[in-house]
Amino acid sequence: MSLFNMPLLIQDTAAIEGDMGMLWMLISGILVFFMQAGFFLVESGMTDSKNAVNIAMKNFLDIAVGSLAFWFVGYSLMYGADMGGGFFHWGGFIFSQGAADLFFQTVFAATAATIVSGAIAGRTKYTTYAIFSIVMTAIIYPVAGGWEWNGGWLNNTDGIMPAEFIDFAGSSIVHSVGGWAALVAAWMVGPRIGKYLNGKPIEMHGHNQMYATLGVFILWLGWFGFNGGSQLAWGGDDATAASQVVLVTNLAASAGAIAALLFTWIKNGKPNLGMTLNGALAGLVSITAGCGNMSEGGAVLAGLVGGILVVLSIGFIEKTLKIDDAVGAISVHGVAGAWGTLVIGLWGVDGDAGIGIFNGGGAAQLGAQAIGVLSYAAWAIVTSFIFLFILKKICGLRVTEAEEIAGLDISEHGTIAYPGKRQREME
Amino acid sequence: MSLFNMPLLIQDTAAIEGDMGMLWMLISGILVFFMQAGFFLVESGMTDSKNAVNIAMKNFLDIAVGSLAFWFVGYSLMYGADMGGGFFHWGGFIFSQGAADLFFQTVFAATAATIVSGAIAGRTKYTTYAIFSIVMTAIIYPVAGGWEWNGGWLNNTDGIMPAEFIDFAGSSIVHSVGGWAALVAAWMVGPRIGKYLNGKPIEMHGHNQMYATLGVFILWLGWFGFNGGSQLAWGGDDATAASQVVLVTNLAASAGAIAALLFTWIKNGKPNLGMTLNGALAGLVSITAGCGNMSEGGAVLAGLVGGILVVLSIGFIEKTLKIDDAVGAISVHGVAGAWGTLVIGLWGVDGDAGIGIFNGGGAAQLGAQAIGVLSYAAWAIVTSFIFLFILKKICGLRVTEAEEIAGLDISEHGTIAYPGKRQREME
Amino acid sequence: MSLFNMPLLIQDTAAIEGDMGMLWMLISGILVFFMQAGFFLVESGMTDSKNAVNIAMKNFLDIAVGSLAFWFVGYSLMYGADMGGGFFHWGGFIFSQGAADLFFQTVFAATAATIVSGAIAGRTKYTTYAIFSIVMTAIIYPVAGGWEWNGGWLNNTDGIMPAEFIDFAGSSIVHSVGGWAALVAAWMVGPRIGKYLNGKPIEMHGHNQMYATLGVFILWLGWFGFNGGSQLAWGGDDATAASQVVLVTNLAASAGAIAALLFTWIKNGKPNLGMTLNGALAGLVSITAGCGNMSEGGAVLAGLVGGILVVLSIGFIEKTLKIDDAVGAISVHGVAGAWGTLVIGLWGVDGDAGIGIFNGGGAAQLGAQAIGVLSYAAWAIVTSFIFLFILKKICGLRVTEAEEIAGLDISEHGTIAYPGKRQREME
Repeated sequence: MSLFNMPLLIQDTAAIEGDMGMLWMLISGILVFFMQAGFFLVESGMTDSKNAVNIAMKNFLDIAVGSLAFWFVGYSLMYGADMGGGFFHWGGFIFSQGAADLFFQTVFAATAATIVSGAIAGRTKYTTYAIFSIVMTAIIYPVAGGWEWNGGWLNNTDGIMPAEFIDFAGSSIVHSVGGWAALVAAWMVGPRIGKYLNGKPIEMHGHNQMYATLGVFILWLGWFGFNGGSQLAWGGDDATAASQVVLVTNLAASAGAIAALLFTWIKNGKPNLGMTLNGALAGLVSITAGCGNMSEGGAVLAGLVGGILVVLSIGFIEKTLKIDDAVGAISVHGVAGAWGTLVIGLWGVDGDAGIGIFNGGGAAQLGAQAIGVLSYAAWAIVTSFIFLFILKKICGLRVTEAEEIAGLDISEHGTIAYPGKRQREME
Repeated sequence: MSLFNMPLLIQDTAAIEGDMGMLWMLISGILVFFMQAGFFLVESGMTDSKNAVNIAMKNFLDIAVGSLAFWFVGYSLMYGADMGGGFFHWGGFIFSQGAADLFFQTVFAATAATIVSGAIAGRTKYTTYAIFSIVMTAIIYPVAGGWEWNGGWLNNTDGIMPAEFIDFAGSSIVHSVGGWAALVAAWMVGPRIGKYLNGKPIEMHGHNQMYATLGVFILWLGWFGFNGGSQLAWGGDDATAASQVVLVTNLAASAGAIAALLFTWIKNGKPNLGMTLNGALAGLVSITAGCGNMSEGGAVLAGLVGGILVVLSIGFIEKTLKIDDAVGAISVHGVAGAWGTLVIGLWGVDGDAGIGIFNGGGAAQLGAQAIGVLSYAAWAIVTSFIFLFILKKICGLRVTEAEEIAGLDISEHGTIAYPGKRQREME
Repeated sequence: MSLFNMPLLIQDTAAIEGDMGMLWMLISGILVFFMQAGFFLVESGMTDSKNAVNIAMKNFLDIAVGSLAFWFVGYSLMYGADMGGGFFHWGGFIFSQGAADLFFQTVFAATAATIVSGAIAGRTKYTTYAIFSIVMTAIIYPVAGGWEWNGGWLNNTDGIMPAEFIDFAGSSIVHSVGGWAALVAAWMVGPRIGKYLNGKPIEMHGHNQMYATLGVFILWLGWFGFNGGSQLAWGGDDATAASQVVLVTNLAASAGAIAALLFTWIKNGKPNLGMTLNGALAGLVSITAGCGNMSEGGAVLAGLVGGILVVLSIGFIEKTLKIDDAVGAISVHGVAGAWGTLVIGLWGVDGDAGIGIFNGGGAAQLGAQAIGVLSYAAWAIVTSFIFLFILKKICGLRVTEAEEIAGLDISEHGTIAYPGKRQREME
């Protein structure tokens, strides 16, 4: 071995760190994929059994159609070349920057789509949802993602931004975009029959709280990949950073669960499972933007606030806005997503330096976070309204009253979730 | 540090890549292990609740007895030294080439065994199945595996092969061997009571489509390890290749789900959950052989065809062959497994070069794939027939009519899946 | 590049091995986290549906409160500086030795806590359990852990130990500490109403054996991280060692399942699912201490004995001690945990050298293991008795008879696990 070979070794180190990063991203992507099962269980468990097959079919659309749509066009709209001002990007059909990254981004897109299905469960036409799911994964989500994760207009201070917008793993880009689209969809589709009596909301029970619980455990599990994998690398500082991301993600989820548990306990006299589940999810969403920019204590606090916010928000949307969100998706993903984005401007950190208004960082970061939150809300609300309006005109958003009462499983899919004896009696 | 130490550094790079490969194989093996839970959920969900405990007990046999049998003798029959012509291999009892590989191969063997249990659910004797499960993991599967993955007769052109047979992760070796054994078993055991009325098949509903859905999500998840881990390495080109394997696996599964969904929608007027689930699995099986030799578009196309094939095949086996496959295992694993093996000869690639008849590769690869498909079918059919025939003579294949009607849970295990009140009433 | 840079390359190798170790620990921790879902499913499936929400709520406490308590104080009590004789440790509040390690240790602590909840299911006050869960994760478990894993008094021969105590992944530290605390709790809380009739135990059926089965598959899966991750490193010998740990873990689990299956089959005439599940878990617990010090054959034997022991122990505790352990947690975790610790002194190995009395290692190791088993039993029994005694005086351990009969879901949480129609009828 001669000295001339030496530089190869330096290259090796970089190559190996690259390989480790790819391994972590791939494993993280696999964990995020599993979140589809979690969403399926949460959504079906928290709603009536007569619509459970329909929810399964919607989740299969999200991952199957979503994977193909994002592969064919979405990734390109998100990670292609800047088409002007960092608002739109394009790289040609079937654009790719490597399989591990494409896979990781694909399962993120499917997550954004699946958030909507829970809110509008129990009354939405399957065909309409199928088309909207394609629109979400192919257009609405990718364009929004490019603004930040492809170095777009939110990711630099060349334009109006007072500071670079921070959304590490997608509190805004994935969750609030999904959540605000869910808000528009739930409002346009209207409440389920029987949800409001003389303007007063009636509790419509889910059918299996065990599914919902298992689903939340699976989502919590998958979130370690969702947030941790967003480091997009492993090796040296990245390994330490990604580990820290996983740690604070777990702390915020724990804090969110406890906050919602205690808050409903004090408020209603008994600790409530459904709200504890939503509290855990809200804690997770609340740390998704800031998991790389938050102290451990800051993460706990962000999760605690998120867990309380989600309880208040669910009540507000149901009682004041009179919008029927069947599983609390708007509050969990939209409201907690906005909160998780803003909190970086309150007590976020960048290494050892405070960047929030409460830890000496000034107001620039909070301003940047607010611009991001508002921009993503506007984008999601406007685009989902336009597409849903067109879909309403062309195919209609909602099944008939008779179909809804019979249940979407029978009317849309000709089956029921638990056949056996009951099915035989029906035939 | 002297220059004489330098070569150590080069060794380090190779050693580290070896360590990364071991890490990926181990994690992949853990994912493949989880597929047992997926099979359990799919098989129990798609069949009657009176046989659900029996299915759980069979899946525990597959992994528990299978792990011990494969460790004690199977791995040796698969990866031992060539005993003649690349047909049989042997390395002594408790042979091993390293713990990570042994673990990874063990969970593969358990998968081959578990495919059979679904097809013959609801009427097979537990003792008989227990012995057959040992035979599958200790003999039938390992001998077959050695032909290809231990450099056996299918893996080189020294003998009759026009090209090296390609089966990257086991469309033929695992899935079609399991599927053809399931065909023989379902035929020999005969249909469930009530399955055919005047020669016409009666639909026998499963009892919980939620379990089946969760099971398919878990199988899809585990398949990333099944296919991706079959790269058997990580580092440099292997990292990129394994990532690409995971990506095309997801695309083919998505395509299979959509194809089956649309095909049943057009055919029957409603999109069907059971067929969508089987379509996703068929898409996964369809890309298992070729996941290292398929473009992304080719993978999508392979999955699409697989998803349609499985719907047609389930009808053909049920209506024309009049074989009662309780969960569609023969179609999903046998038929889609054969398809996934053959498709490499149609539009497979080797790096940038086409090796299929449709992309300029000539007919040699298709010939090799066909020889492999036929050889594995012949091996699985003949050996499973012989062993099941002997078992039929010695202990019988089937429970009594009274036991079948009462359900295997009561008759074979003295319990039921959902005790509670119902159990108390019975006592 | 000059020769002066050379040493950097050596550092790179060590750094990369450190990064790989961190990756393996993080992934293992994520797998161990998922065990909470497994415990939830096993415990709820094996008990009455009227208490299923309560079990979900307890498991959320374990992970959520446990994560915060262990982060705030537990990790410090376990891994802080020696405060005297290796019995107590302290490093200040929010002490940490790195995020990956803290996360990995946190999910271990949550496991120790959750073991208790199963044994006392169906009659324990939620408030009381909440406080006890904090005590477990913040004090009882961490202090015990420090004795061994922080180089405490059991981990060296400076004091009374005839050899260094070996408990690789926590047969004693996690499982038997949890199991003995469960014993004390189940004894102090007393049996469920209807469990004993004239001193004879009545079988109280679970409500969903499918959940229990899925739960065991998830626990088995998570255990690969529990044991494998306890290598705490990856790279070179560590990679091989951790792979071997995963392999023997799978073998012991398989052996435990088969032993319990065959033993109940011979004993009762039918193979029993519940006991097969507990046998698999007992096999896992039996190899947890010795997974780094056991040959493959030794692991199989340890698992076989564990699988039989658990069946005998469940009968003994229920019939002779007349303690009502709703899910067999004392036997699975306490008894098999003690067995798994002791077996190292019987046929354990250290590399190629035998360290047990049956393979030429003398009696020193068995003595050390016995001291460890007894010390952990004494610690867990005494501390949990003290805390539960105080809790009994202050808030009471048990709900009222009317609340217990109605079910904890209604009385403690104001809901039921499967609402739908049944709930509507109740209102």
